[in-house]
Amino acid sequence: MTTSWEYRYAQRTKGMRSSAIRDLLKVASQPGVISLAGGMPAPELFPLKEVEEACIRVLRDRGSDALQYSTTEGYPPLRELIVEKMSRYGILATLDNVLITSGSQQALDLVGKVLLDPGDVIIVEAPTYVGAIQAFTAYQASYASVPLDDEGMVVDLLEQRIIETHPKFTYVLPNFHNPAGVTLSRERRERLVSLSRQYGVPLVEDDPYGELRFEGEHIAPIVVIDANRNGEQREGYFKGDVVYMSTLSKTLSPGLRLGWIVAPVEVVDKLVQAKQGADLHTNTFSQMVAYEVIRDGFLEKHVREIRDVYRQRRDAMLATMEECFPEEVSWTRPQGGLFLWVKLPEAVDSQELLEKALQEKVAFVPGTAFYADGRGRDAMRLTFATCSIEKIDQGIRRLGKAITHRLKQPA
Amino acid sequence: MTTSWEYRYAQRTKGMRSSAIRDLLKVASQPGVISLAGGMPAPELFPLKEVEEACIRVLRDRGSDALQYSTTEGYPPLRELIVEKMSRYGILATLDNVLITSGSQQALDLVGKVLLDPGDVIIVEAPTYVGAIQAFTAYQASYASVPLDDEGMVVDLLEQRIIETHPKFTYVLPNFHNPAGVTLSRERRERLVSLSRQYGVPLVEDDPYGELRFEGEHIAPIVVIDANRNGEQREGYFKGDVVYMSTLSKTLSPGLRLGWIVAPVEVVDKLVQAKQGADLHTNTFSQMVAYEVIRDGFLEKHVREIRDVYRQRRDAMLATMEECFPEEVSWTRPQGGLFLWVKLPEAVDSQELLEKALQEKVAFVPGTAFYADGRGRDAMRLTFATCSIEKIDQGIRRLGKAITHRLKQPA
Repeated sequence: MTTSWEYRYAQRTKGMRSSAIRDLLKVASQPGVISLAGGMPAPELFPLKEVEEACIRVLRDRGSDALQYSTTEGYPPLRELIVEKMSRYGILATLDNVLITSGSQQALDLVGKVLLDPGDVIIVEAPTYVGAIQAFTAYQASYASVPLDDEGMVVDLLEQRIIETHPKFTYVLPNFHNPAGVTLSRERRERLVSLSRQYGVPLVEDDPYGELRFEGEHIAPIVVIDANRNGEQREGYFKGDVVYMSTLSKTLSPGLRLGWIVAPVEVVDKLVQAKQGADLHTNTFSQMVAYEVIRDGFLEKHVREIRDVYRQRRDAMLATMEECFPEEVSWTRPQGGLFLWVKLPEAVDSQELLEKALQEKVAFVPGTAFYADGRGRDAMRLTFATCSIEKIDQGIRRLGKAITHRLKQPA
Repeated sequence: MTTSWEYRYAQRTKGMRSSAIRDLLKVASQPGVISLAGGMPAPELFPLKEVEEACIRVLRDRGSDALQYSTTEGYPPLRELIVEKMSRYGILATLDNVLITSGSQQALDLVGKVLLDPGDVIIVEAPTYVGAIQAFTAYQASYASVPLDDEGMVVDLLEQRIIETHPKFTYVLPNFHNPAGVTLSRERRERLVSLSRQYGVPLVEDDPYGELRFEGEHIAPIVVIDANRNGEQREGYFKGDVVYMSTLSKTLSPGLRLGWIVAPVEVVDKLVQAKQGADLHTNTFSQMVAYEVIRDGFLEKHVREIRDVYRQRRDAMLATMEECFPEEVSWTRPQGGLFLWVKLPEAVDSQELLEKALQEKVAFVPGTAFYADGRGRDAMRLTFATCSIEKIDQGIRRLGKAITHRLKQPA
């Protein structure tokens, strides 16, 4: 007797599905299509020369270490750099608070693996990052959502959700939200922290874009506000109720798959055990190469350059939208990051609009991809990071044409 | 109110623990200690020049692809090489049967994630690979074990275990077993396949060392025997009841974290969904660099060199063991791989022996690390791959002295 595989899969696979974005990107990559869909950094900004020099240095000076197994926690000098980075934000972290992950997607997976039992509720923003839903759903989480406005999560609605659902944690993207492009205000961050304290609900702070601020004042990460609230900072090392994660994917290179988690030591210890079973350790060579590239302050210089380019592209996108989107359409004006969020008139279904848009040879991501519950038909995500100003202008004009065309049709 | 983290962890974390080996390696890495403990490839054999040239070529010819996001399935040319490799074994796999993973440790994790519900039983060899236990335990598996002898898993005892436990799958390391160093005979592979067919129990074949055969005849992988049993091979693509996995860690470099899974298309599709949530995709740069290094047959040449060195080191280890281990001690004589397995007299506890051995400045891994149930006190694993012949000779003499010393003590 041979059983077919379909009877063998674990319960958790029932919730798994391929990302709509991922499938869309295949279509969007067809010749002639201007893709405003993917969240890809501008490849022409990758520091190829610096990476090449770093590869040569690493292989010549420490080659046999670079190609060998290494520790699960990550390459100590790279973790040391993360500690410095965090200290600039005001976090008194030590090496033991830092875990290097295989991209921040793995950070999400490990947090789910260590914290989530089937049925546990996570409070997420609506909309939220689709990759987080993919990571947490694999551990059979369920979701309660809090809406966003121009100041980020509407924290006033959070307390009720907490009382109703007894969540395991709250997942929040405070800076230049993916997909919404909005940023959580300082006041709301403080309210978020005090509510989390009051109800004992930890926060998972996902901050891949924090360094990509084009304008406006830097706002302290939630982990900093939390750590400074409790006295433990004075003890000289970082504790608290926040698991913070970030990545080099948007500032250096996504292909190198390097992210990190900053968390209380006891949480890092659990995450390390989970990571041992998941992939032993993060790519040794990538860690050493990335360290060589960024060790002497290169990243700060490089990030300034990325910010300038992305700001100009955002401005170009906003300008063309003002010019040629119908007045019934509204959108966010992000102060940083890669994305903005477009609200369409009720009459327009973004899934149907996409078909028309692809005929016009422009691609975006329909809003439904970013909700755990099928909402978002009247919204779409656009990225201004990947295409040149010329392409952005052309793409937005094509999109405006598609929207206008949809609006003319009887609903 | 602030809840302490210890009340927040998922049920699955109760089974997680740090690998005993990993903690041991910290001690073993102290100056002057000869470590026969870790399973590290010989670093002096890493092809540093070839990797450097490949890095430069990749960054200059396709740099912006190499540092960008890429597909979850893996770099197509690398997958194509895996398809060729498998076809040399007699598997008619296509690109859709191959998933590149972040080392074969991730292959184990993804298989567990897709197949295991809490309480599912896995049949493992006793002893078995500790990393597999770590990966599967995170999905709350339980274990039934079948002993090993010089021909590998004692398959005659498997049927009874299957009947008793209704396992989700059988996990087997057929070639140059870690830790036991034994190889599953052709006859037993065929019996294993027919039993799995008869009872509808899939096989997970973990083959990291298969290419490192020093002597004797190549034996077809289980996946080949299974695929050739069922007619589907004639349909021109690979199906069957086996999930096969291997890695470049022992033949090229573990630091690059590159492994792969070959499985039926429907299983690969599920694994791809799981991998999207786990880390999006495997390191793009590593995949392209590894492909550049091995594309033109370099690996075959390089593996011959590795085999020669490891064979000489195995011979040196066996010779010194013959000379200076007490006669009550016995051990396996592997035809390939990195490890051999030593059986100690009942009177000697390998945990206690390790303390004495570390005083003598030599390290090994106690057998208990390789059982799911605390057995193995009377055994230890030695690796002959990492140290020079001189160090091996010296280390074995120190170990022989420690064993003799233990035997002299009253039990």
